Amino acid sequence: MAGSFQTVKGFRDFYPEQMALRNYLVDAWRRVSIRNGFVEYEAAMLEYLDLFRVKSGEGIVSELFSLVDRGGRELAIAPEITPSLARMINARIGGLPRPIKWFSIPHVCRAENPQKGRGREFYQWNVDVVGSDEVLADAECIFTLVDLLAELNLSPADAAVFLSSRSLLAAALASVGVANEKHEAVLPVLDKRDKVPPEAFEEMALKAGLEAAQIDRLRRFQDSTTLAEAIGYLEPTDAVATARAALEEVLKLLGAMGAGDYVKLDLHVVRGLAYYTGVVYEAFDSGRALRALAGGGRYDNLLELLGGPKIGATGFGMGDIVLGILLAEKGKLPDFAERCDCFIIDAGEGMFDDALAIVAELRRAGLAAGFSYKRQALGKQLRAAGQKGAAIAVIVGQELRDRGEVVVKDMATGEQAPVARAELARELQSRPRGLAR
Amino acid sequence: MAGSFQTVKGFRDFYPEQMALRNYLVDAWRRVSIRNGFVEYEAAMLEYLDLFRVKSGEGIVSELFSLVDRGGRELAIAPEITPSLARMINARIGGLPRPIKWFSIPHVCRAENPQKGRGREFYQWNVDVVGSDEVLADAECIFTLVDLLAELNLSPADAAVFLSSRSLLAAALASVGVANEKHEAVLPVLDKRDKVPPEAFEEMALKAGLEAAQIDRLRRFQDSTTLAEAIGYLEPTDAVATARAALEEVLKLLGAMGAGDYVKLDLHVVRGLAYYTGVVYEAFDSGRALRALAGGGRYDNLLELLGGPKIGATGFGMGDIVLGILLAEKGKLPDFAERCDCFIIDAGEGMFDDALAIVAELRRAGLAAGFSYKRQALGKQLRAAGQKGAAIAVIVGQELRDRGEVVVKDMATGEQAPVARAELARELQSRPRGLAR
Repeated sequence: MAGSFQTVKGFRDFYPEQMALRNYLVDAWRRVSIRNGFVEYEAAMLEYLDLFRVKSGEGIVSELFSLVDRGGRELAIAPEITPSLARMINARIGGLPRPIKWFSIPHVCRAENPQKGRGREFYQWNVDVVGSDEVLADAECIFTLVDLLAELNLSPADAAVFLSSRSLLAAALASVGVANEKHEAVLPVLDKRDKVPPEAFEEMALKAGLEAAQIDRLRRFQDSTTLAEAIGYLEPTDAVATARAALEEVLKLLGAMGAGDYVKLDLHVVRGLAYYTGVVYEAFDSGRALRALAGGGRYDNLLELLGGPKIGATGFGMGDIVLGILLAEKGKLPDFAERCDCFIIDAGEGMFDDALAIVAELRRAGLAAGFSYKRQALGKQLRAAGQKGAAIAVIVGQELRDRGEVVVKDMATGEQAPVARAELARELQSRPRGLAR
Repeated sequence: MAGSFQTVKGFRDFYPEQMALRNYLVDAWRRVSIRNGFVEYEAAMLEYLDLFRVKSGEGIVSELFSLVDRGGRELAIAPEITPSLARMINARIGGLPRPIKWFSIPHVCRAENPQKGRGREFYQWNVDVVGSDEVLADAECIFTLVDLLAELNLSPADAAVFLSSRSLLAAALASVGVANEKHEAVLPVLDKRDKVPPEAFEEMALKAGLEAAQIDRLRRFQDSTTLAEAIGYLEPTDAVATARAALEEVLKLLGAMGAGDYVKLDLHVVRGLAYYTGVVYEAFDSGRALRALAGGGRYDNLLELLGGPKIGATGFGMGDIVLGILLAEKGKLPDFAERCDCFIIDAGEGMFDDALAIVAELRRAGLAAGFSYKRQALGKQLRAAGQKGAAIAVIVGQELRDRGEVVVKDMATGEQAPVARAELARELQSRPRGLAR
């Protein structure tokens, strides 16, 4: 059974150093969500498998970690949170004031083969606005994503959001004469264009029913760097004009919010999932060396598909793995260290219980107070304090009995001074803590 | 497929109000752990099923949510974290300075029937010291548990830790003449004593091989309120003396740490699991109306059982469900509210982009800044600010164009005053925030 003592392939153990990174990302996600007016929720750990079948079809089943419980029910660990979000909102649709601005940080699982930036499980920050058809909701989600990048010290030179529109893509297909019934086959081809060689794209496009002239126009349309240029390759239909106006409005709102530098038009962005209906976007490292950092868009039909009302919805998801890799590569991670504000040392016979009482009191006052399990000489305990990275050592010796004082030593400067026992907690609370550096 | 849109039985959705409670508990667990010198880890989401078989025997399998992956491997969602902790530490045993003081807050699953205080999934705070044989390690874990109770405003009149010792129980059994090979059958009977009627206990005890006189002595021993009284019912063996001294030392250390009020001797505590070897304890509400809040003890053989060295280990687990029920019943929960520090209002034609720029700037400065998606009259927007619980409204009107000023309104007092646009973020940061009340 030796194999049973291994970590399951594609899954991660979080030793303290990895846990510190995860907490750093999760804390930033939570902080940015809250200041942008989103409230946190989380869906049940397991869902009925059918929830994912309804949204994504039978094909999803092979990509899930699923199980049958003792009652014979087919359950699965969620591969994404959006179906659960729709289920939860549909269940309380009458009682939730709109717009519903929610975020979540679920641990999701996908039965894929592990690759760089892609495990079989990851944490995914999800930010959604449900119950609003306004492009303002799309803009606020994208602003929140940009706010996170800035919060983690990623500049527009490090990472950016690439913006497109499913409604504009649909209007574009229609305007160059692609019949509606072909769109479902054509959109995934346009989505894959950046990931395959030009000849392979052409072959796929022909197979999906596009003509050579259509392929050429759509290629120029996708490659355009401005919206005006892109529109120039299309017939001027009402649908094109409406979709263009909506996309321009999102760009204008993001400009007003000072996020313009982080947002670039990129009509290569299509998003694989069938359920998007409006603005879509992906965030990438600017070198485009890694997988997507985040992806999202508007999905106005999902809640209805899952038994609820027809109601506007928009949002995005961002995983922890690629983000962690990018921050490490860019040298933007802080130095994670165990927190030890002070280290309490017993100096002299019979002082240990006094030292322990001080440890307890300081901890109750909110300070991370360490001490040595072994009764050792002062020098050894000071070394232990240094190894723990303690900013301060508190030496509990005969002075306590004689004058009610302990000695406080600054571990960086070596300076030491007596402090009244009764004042110790207050005195140490007023000093800078040995927080994670 | 309507059933697929339900929450799976025994699993919880965390709507914002439940999520706020969970975050409140998790934050307290994390804060108390860190100040007591523990560092956070987390094990992989799925484990090989054999890991749990090795620790708990084949019987555990029916209590697990298990699955077979595409490679035919038997995997399971962990029902507890201790086997994973042992696996992770064993894998790095050479590189971890001891004592290893780790904590974790895993989401665990058990295929049980849901009852009050017991779902099929829960969050469990785990605090462990590995690599120390000292009772100081046991005492520090118990202090950390007590520190958590105090941190959540639970007094000794609300909840307490009930302390016992597996080594003392084993010595007691031996001293009254129960052969070693019977201990494994007898300990679970002693563990169940509080949960069954006296006659049922007697019957189980006889069946486990105890004689009537032994049952009587062990009953008196367990019912003793002081260690001295309990020892009086036993033969004075060396094992009894050693186990007594260790237990007295733990009580003395906890006394020195000021935690004595929360800790009571209770020899009815046995703990169901076979793997405990020393001090054991459970925390309960003082009315004993609910299930255990926490349970733990010393387990010196587990790492070796899971392929590692023979190395001392001690720790406890505490679930979120019973703790949440107790805090609610005692009225010790804060009022969880969505955080909205300020609400930005556009007053007048063409001011919305300016309002949005202010929203963005305040959020980047760390303030939770709300605004209305709808362009409405000032009065309606002020009402929206009130509904969001905003402490402050910022009115962006013609003053901005005329004098570079906005109007800041205190929503509680109704007072309002102009503030220079350039000073706004600093001004609002200096005010008390609309934090979760």
